[in-house]
Amino acid sequence: MPNCIIAQSGGPTSVINSSVVGLIRANEEFKIFDKVYGGLNGIEGILNKNIIDLSQISSEDIDTFRLTPSSGLGSCRYKMKNIEESTEEYDRLLDILKSLDIKAFFYVGGNDSMDTTAKLGKYAKENGLDINFIGIPKTIDNDLMYTDHTPGFGSAANFISTAVLETYLDSSVYINNGIFIVETMGRDTGWLAASACTARYNGKPVADFIYLPEKAFNVEDFLCDVRAKFKEQNQVFIVASEGLKTEDGRFLSEMNVISQDNFGHSQLGGVGQHLRQLILDAGITTRVKALELGVLQRCAMHCASQIDIDEAFNAGYEALKYAADGHNGYMVAIKRESNSPYSTSFFLVEANKIANNVKYFPKEWINEKGNGVTEEAYEYFMPLLNGVPTLYRTNNVPQYKVFTK
Amino acid sequence: MPNCIIAQSGGPTSVINSSVVGLIRANEEFKIFDKVYGGLNGIEGILNKNIIDLSQISSEDIDTFRLTPSSGLGSCRYKMKNIEESTEEYDRLLDILKSLDIKAFFYVGGNDSMDTTAKLGKYAKENGLDINFIGIPKTIDNDLMYTDHTPGFGSAANFISTAVLETYLDSSVYINNGIFIVETMGRDTGWLAASACTARYNGKPVADFIYLPEKAFNVEDFLCDVRAKFKEQNQVFIVASEGLKTEDGRFLSEMNVISQDNFGHSQLGGVGQHLRQLILDAGITTRVKALELGVLQRCAMHCASQIDIDEAFNAGYEALKYAADGHNGYMVAIKRESNSPYSTSFFLVEANKIANNVKYFPKEWINEKGNGVTEEAYEYFMPLLNGVPTLYRTNNVPQYKVFTK
Repeated sequence: MPNCIIAQSGGPTSVINSSVVGLIRANEEFKIFDKVYGGLNGIEGILNKNIIDLSQISSEDIDTFRLTPSSGLGSCRYKMKNIEESTEEYDRLLDILKSLDIKAFFYVGGNDSMDTTAKLGKYAKENGLDINFIGIPKTIDNDLMYTDHTPGFGSAANFISTAVLETYLDSSVYINNGIFIVETMGRDTGWLAASACTARYNGKPVADFIYLPEKAFNVEDFLCDVRAKFKEQNQVFIVASEGLKTEDGRFLSEMNVISQDNFGHSQLGGVGQHLRQLILDAGITTRVKALELGVLQRCAMHCASQIDIDEAFNAGYEALKYAADGHNGYMVAIKRESNSPYSTSFFLVEANKIANNVKYFPKEWINEKGNGVTEEAYEYFMPLLNGVPTLYRTNNVPQYKVFTK
Repeated sequence: MPNCIIAQSGGPTSVINSSVVGLIRANEEFKIFDKVYGGLNGIEGILNKNIIDLSQISSEDIDTFRLTPSSGLGSCRYKMKNIEESTEEYDRLLDILKSLDIKAFFYVGGNDSMDTTAKLGKYAKENGLDINFIGIPKTIDNDLMYTDHTPGFGSAANFISTAVLETYLDSSVYINNGIFIVETMGRDTGWLAASACTARYNGKPVADFIYLPEKAFNVEDFLCDVRAKFKEQNQVFIVASEGLKTEDGRFLSEMNVISQDNFGHSQLGGVGQHLRQLILDAGITTRVKALELGVLQRCAMHCASQIDIDEAFNAGYEALKYAADGHNGYMVAIKRESNSPYSTSFFLVEANKIANNVKYFPKEWINEKGNGVTEEAYEYFMPLLNGVPTLYRTNNVPQYKVFTK
């Protein structure tokens, strides 16, 4: 029996390892391949023959690995040259795969990884090689085309939703509260920031305003929003995407020098700090705080979404079956069959259609004033947050397992 | 039957409401008081007669409230004048309590709240009033004297531990990783930062260095630590307290003073960014990131410690019994009876001994180089992190209940 290999690429998520485990478990069930190899640190590691045999790992370790955040096989941001430029890397990689009798290559990643998958699939086919390349989607940004959503997003959204609700309550305890700004990730798209609309108290969204990159940021409108709301309720809760841009396309975060310290260092802040400074400068109140959720959005497994973990698992599981059926150069995608009860199915999209493409947050889900999202957005997000995982624990902290340490 | 009242003060924690519920449940059991009133927004709200009857709340809402972060009765940072200056507020407050036939007053808070408790207890006694004032400890900072630890700390430590482990894994996925800095709260003491020593992978602490306010920060030593470790493992993981100070007592972040609260406490931030800039300026690497955990440390109920929730509950429960026994002007404190198996008991400390006092992280638990903590510290922290709560959920997000919204 031939073998297969799986590797991870790009930024981590909480559920990227679940996809690897889905593939391992599917192979145990269907016995398609003799061994499931794991390429450490993506293409970069495979080119250095940094490969392990995942079939030899104990079932207990695989189960722990499934509930481990971060790319447990290691990751890379390695971009292969275009075939027209040079085929050297392609030939070297395929030689390594051939030497291990590998007939299927699975790459878990986002747009760039799908670019790699498409290029490799095309090159293999053109050279008459019997190796199938299949992409498995992964990104907290939810910005891949054709798929209803991406594994990784639901867990990020679950953390954002919970953290927004908790910080809202925390910032509401005094008689005179202030303005609280939560900054989410999302350099190009507003999916993560928008998902904060699911944070609700007594059925009402706790965020007074949500600002997305899909809508040009206007300082006057922003200050007008905030001033009026602060006057009305003596408290404002704001969610903003790190990717906010002005009308002329400049990132707010790049205009941002807050202060200089005693050593003359410029203190660079993110979007949250920038908005905070705008509010302070406008004299609305001095009580303004900003919190950047940062990488916790992509690694807070302790607050991941069980639905997301399961879907990531199933994406890996289906990928194995698709490869067994002889598909090459495709990415596994998710179709939402029904919202209530929530159900999905999987299908294939050509990987080159995903590569270098971006799915923006729909304009029609942004409210008229451009400072919030509609109930249609809420209906889309809600089923993706279902349930949190029960983690394995050792000495009272989560027990995790990666293969690079 | 007379009544009692409970109120919350100072910064929120994840378990401050659990203490209120412990008191309510104890009163249901022992039937000491007719009604348990809740003073909204602490002393400040009570002086405005902003008082609710907690005995009338449904048991279901009380259960939800128990697992709700933030001060669900509202909080204040109100400092009463010294009795020598003016007794006007004292008289007004006692008149309000008398009008409601209140015979016991419970204040859940930290040092400042124990100051208030002590003053009120003393004034009541001096004026022959039959009202007992009992303090219930609460602070994530763990900086109250005499008590082994404070309710609220274990949950903050649990979140820090988990977040440190998860961000460590997240920051370790590439072949060339960088330097990651996690900034914890802890203006005066290093308990929170030190608790990061519980974050372990394969039994080994993931933080290479932990810097505490109890040890003067030396830039040269810091850069020497970081440079050597980076050379050794091409990756460094640092945990730093927001309260780091130089030899001459200046806060590293004092250039970032945002505002001062009514007690004259400076609001600090930005130590992580400051350390990042030091590393960049020293040319060790350009790959340096800093993450401020911020208020999530005190409100991340989704990652709270069940032991902490239970101890907070029991502190409220015991407080009621102590008041019934006629004690006045005391704070309920925790004694650690045994570490393994972990067990505790409660006792009373005079509130004025707690007020305006600080329990520092023990110097003997800081390692020789001043850049980490000892295994004794680990043994102290570990039992405080036991278990996470199962939260009530509505529409896939945690269901919380406060009485100020």
